[in-house]
Parts: sequence; C-alpha cells; structure tokens
Amino acid sequence: MTFHQNLNQISSLVEKKMKELLPSVSSEKDRKLVDAMSYSSLSSGKRLRPFLTFISASLFGVSQESALRAASAIEFVHAYSIIHDDLPAMDDDDERRGQPSCHIKFGEAAAILAGDALLTLAFEIMSDKDTHPDSNVRCDLVSALAKAIGCHGMVGGQMLDVLSEESEFSVNEIMRMQRMKTGELFAVACETGAILGKSSKNLRNSLRNYAHSLGLAFQITDDIMDNTSDNQENGKIYKKTNVDNIGIENSQEQAKMLISQAISHLHVFEEKADPLRELARFVLERNR
Amino acid sequence: MTFHQNLNQISSLVEKKMKELLPSVSSEKDRKLVDAMSYSSLSSGKRLRPFLTFISASLFGVSQESALRAASAIEFVHAYSIIHDDLPAMDDDDERRGQPSCHIKFGEAAAILAGDALLTLAFEIMSDKDTHPDSNVRCDLVSALAKAIGCHGMVGGQMLDVLSEESEFSVNEIMRMQRMKTGELFAVACETGAILGKSSKNLRNSLRNYAHSLGLAFQITDDIMDNTSDNQENGKIYKKTNVDNIGIENSQEQAKMLISQAISHLHVFEEKADPLRELARFVLERNR
Repeated sequence: MTFHQNLNQISSLVEKKMKELLPSVSSEKDRKLVDAMSYSSLSSGKRLRPFLTFISASLFGVSQESALRAASAIEFVHAYSIIHDDLPAMDDDDERRGQPSCHIKFGEAAAILAGDALLTLAFEIMSDKDTHPDSNVRCDLVSALAKAIGCHGMVGGQMLDVLSEESEFSVNEIMRMQRMKTGELFAVACETGAILGKSSKNLRNSLRNYAHSLGLAFQITDDIMDNTSDNQENGKIYKKTNVDNIGIENSQEQAKMLISQAISHLHVFEEKADPLRELARFVLERNR
Repeated sequence: MTFHQNLNQISSLVEKKMKELLPSVSSEKDRKLVDAMSYSSLSSGKRLRPFLTFISASLFGVSQESALRAASAIEFVHAYSIIHDDLPAMDDDDERRGQPSCHIKFGEAAAILAGDALLTLAFEIMSDKDTHPDSNVRCDLVSALAKAIGCHGMVGGQMLDVLSEESEFSVNEIMRMQRMKTGELFAVACETGAILGKSSKNLRNSLRNYAHSLGLAFQITDDIMDNTSDNQENGKIYKKTNVDNIGIENSQEQAKMLISQAISHLHVFEEKADPLRELARFVLERNR
C-alpha cells in the first residue's frame, strides 16, 4: 500500500467514527448547531492529525476502536480551531478549502457555538470509558489535550497571531507563536497514541518531538505556499510570516532541516514508524 | 453565621483559588489573553455555582482543597459562557454587572479566545491529580462537565436562545431552553460535589434534581427582574421569555413551586443541607 492509500484509508475510518460520535438531533430546533458542527468537521481535509494519532497508537498495539475515537477527538479540536480562527473578529476568512466557512454558512453565533461544542465534545470523548478502560489513561488524555489547547497552546498561539497583525514580532516570536498554534496540536495528536498505549515516557517524548518539528515544518511549507500564491486576489489579509523575514530559500532549508530532525526522533521505532517518516516527506514535498 | 456571611466567605476562598489557578504570564505578549481571562472570571459575581459545589462537597466530607479547585473550574465555565454570550453575534451586551463586557474591554478576538481558554482550563483542572487522587473520580468530573456544557447543555441552550429571537418558541420550548442554558450548569455544580465525595447514585441524583429546579427558578426570577426593570433604556435587546407568555404573577408562583420542589430533594441530607435550603430561599426572595 502506498502512503497516499494508507492516508486515505485511515481518513475514511476516522470520518466514519466522527459521524458516529457527533451528537444526534432530538428536536428540529437543535438541528442547526449539529449541522454546523458536522459541516465543519466532516468537510474535506487531509486528516493529518488523526493519522498521527492512529499510527502512533499502532506502534503500541492499541485497539482500533480506541485509536479511532481518540483520533476523532483530535480532529474535532482541529475543526473547532478552524471555525474560531475563521471568524470575522479573527482571520475573517470567508472560505475554507473552497467552501464557505462556518460563519458564512450558518451565521456567526452558530459558528462560535459549534466551535465551543466541538471543543467540549473532544473532552467528552477522551473521558469516556469506550475510549479506554483505564481511567488513568483517560485522565492523561484529557490533561494532555487541555494543555495543548489552552493559554500555552493553540489558543495562546492564536492570540499571538492576532496580536502579530498590530505589533512587531521577531523571528523567534513568530516561531514561538507557530509552535503554540500548530505544533502543540500535532504533538498531542502523537502523544495521544502513546498515552493510549501506556508507553514509556521516553517513547512518548520521542513521538512528541517528532510531531513538534513536523508541525513547525508544516507551518513553514504552508507559509511558503501562501507567499508564492496570490492571496491578495482572494481578499485574504496577508500576514507577515518568517518567509518574509528570512526569504523563501532559507525557509525551504529550514523546513528540510526540521523534517530530518523530526525523522531522527523515530529511530527507536525502527520500520514500524515508516508511515510517520512518509508523512514527514509528504509535508516537505507538497510545496514543490 | 448568617447565610450571606457564609456565601461571602466561600466566595472569597473560591476567588483566592481561582487566582492561583489562572495561568501565569511568561512573556509580555501573553499578557492580554490572561488579563482578559482574569478580568471576566474575577470580576464581581455572586459565585452561586461554586457555592453549590462547595456545600455539596461538604455533605460528603470532601477536602477543602478538592472542593475549591472543582468549584473554581465550575466558575471558569460560567465565566466562559458569559464572555461568549455577551459577544456582538450573540446577545451583544456591552456591559456586565456595571462593567464593560470582555469584548468591549479587550476586543472581540481576545474575548472569543479568553472564553475558549477558560473552558479548556476547567477541563485541565478537573483532570488534574491535585483535584482528586482517584482517576475514576477525575474522569467522572470531566464527563459530567462536558455533558453539561455541550450540545444538550449550555451550548445547545444558548443556540436555542439565539434562535428564539427569530422563530416562535412555545412555553415548553422556552422552558427546555432554560433548563439547558442555566439548569445544566447549576446541576453539574452540585453533582461535582457528589462525585468528589464518591456519593451513591441516589444522593447524587437528589443534588442534581435540587440544583436543576433551583436553576430554573433562578432563570425565572431573573426574567421577572428584567421584565420589571426598564432594559430598553440600556439599549439591551429585550428577549421574550415565559414571563411574557404567562404573566408576572404566574411566573412568581412557578418560581415558588420550583423552590419548594428543589428543597424537597434535600430531606435525605437533614440539617447538613441547610445552606442549600437558604440559597434556595435567597434565589426566590431576591426579586422582591
């Protein structure tokens, strides 16, 4: 099976599980919120984060049901962050992957609440017995996820992103912002697999470090693509990134270095971690 | 000690704990988010929900540290919901308890993110070993809280509240909306005390039922106060409530009935539950 076949297959399994986990509609008036949640979480996406969870879990022989439930929770958090980041008060993006963004389709109030509900759903899933029979594991999942999202994680990173539009940010400050905004969710996606597998602290950290470097490389290749495509045409606000600070060539070099760094953390897992290595190469090559 | 002295004393203890639990600022650029979180959660409030948690926990001999941490998490969730409910896309309230609301003071982006971070912080606290040594208890806390917030709880209720401005809602539908929007957080505030105390299912349900009726009565007395004060003057959107549907007198009767219903659930706890009985009377009498 090629890497892309593998990615697509896992992505289908995760989507099926996400559909199962989204709340059911008990009264007609409840439909809008659930529709907004489904629209944003089930719309097309590469499902890189759940892939990280699924493959990491497989390194420790975790059951497929546990892995898929936790991977779905991670993707719900990603969907929440996209909905809130796209809001007019934030990045003000009318489109996401060629489709109207959540607040354009359902209105701002429903979008804010759908984000809140998806975030909450992720914690509900992580703390549920069906995700793992051991309550220590479930608490660990909740803790790690909360830390990755909160003030020192995604939410803190998004706040810095908003502030970076109005004040000077150094190369290091932009890097820190990206680590928080993108790196932390990548890292916890991998960590989640290790927690489910009751892995040693060492292996858990290896996966975390792999994913952190991968996330940063992902952000840089994203910024390169934004920089080379003509976003002003789409009416999108162009944000200054480190690509503007250090140039495209240096950014490409940096991404390359981060990817080899990421891969170097995987040697303890031998060939079992090949899908993670392939993912790393995929992230690097998608901007060519 | 009178009821008000008791309420004030517990409120001070909770506020002290909340200050401890709010994240620290590691870099100057992180200050805004933490300031917005602190502003909205530490600003004056009656702290009724943490009082419910604290007193419920005391019925089962829970340690003060556990009770205060969990009570703080409940109040952080309340603060999150206030911030998001006040946003321009929702109720568009510029003021909260006589002070500028979070988005007026810090801007909309910071307000949305401060809400997200407070919501996340609550789950982080509930899953933390310092809140309770038993991981089963911690998972239960997270689960119950997530259910009270999600689609079938506060967030679902707020969505219905937004929809009620544009479509017809029956008396029963408004009641259901208020049960979700207000009742669920009251209920989980009490349940949290019972979970910390590893109470029987019966006692946990008694407290849940008490708090649910209390929450509904609280909402009705709030609506009566809104109905009798002149809110249009404050430029606040006046929302139709059941006070408009059934009249002030009937609403007062309903609140009274709910309060005796609430108190009736407490008989198993004998005089130990007196603070909860006094709170119920306080909720009823504040509109006179």
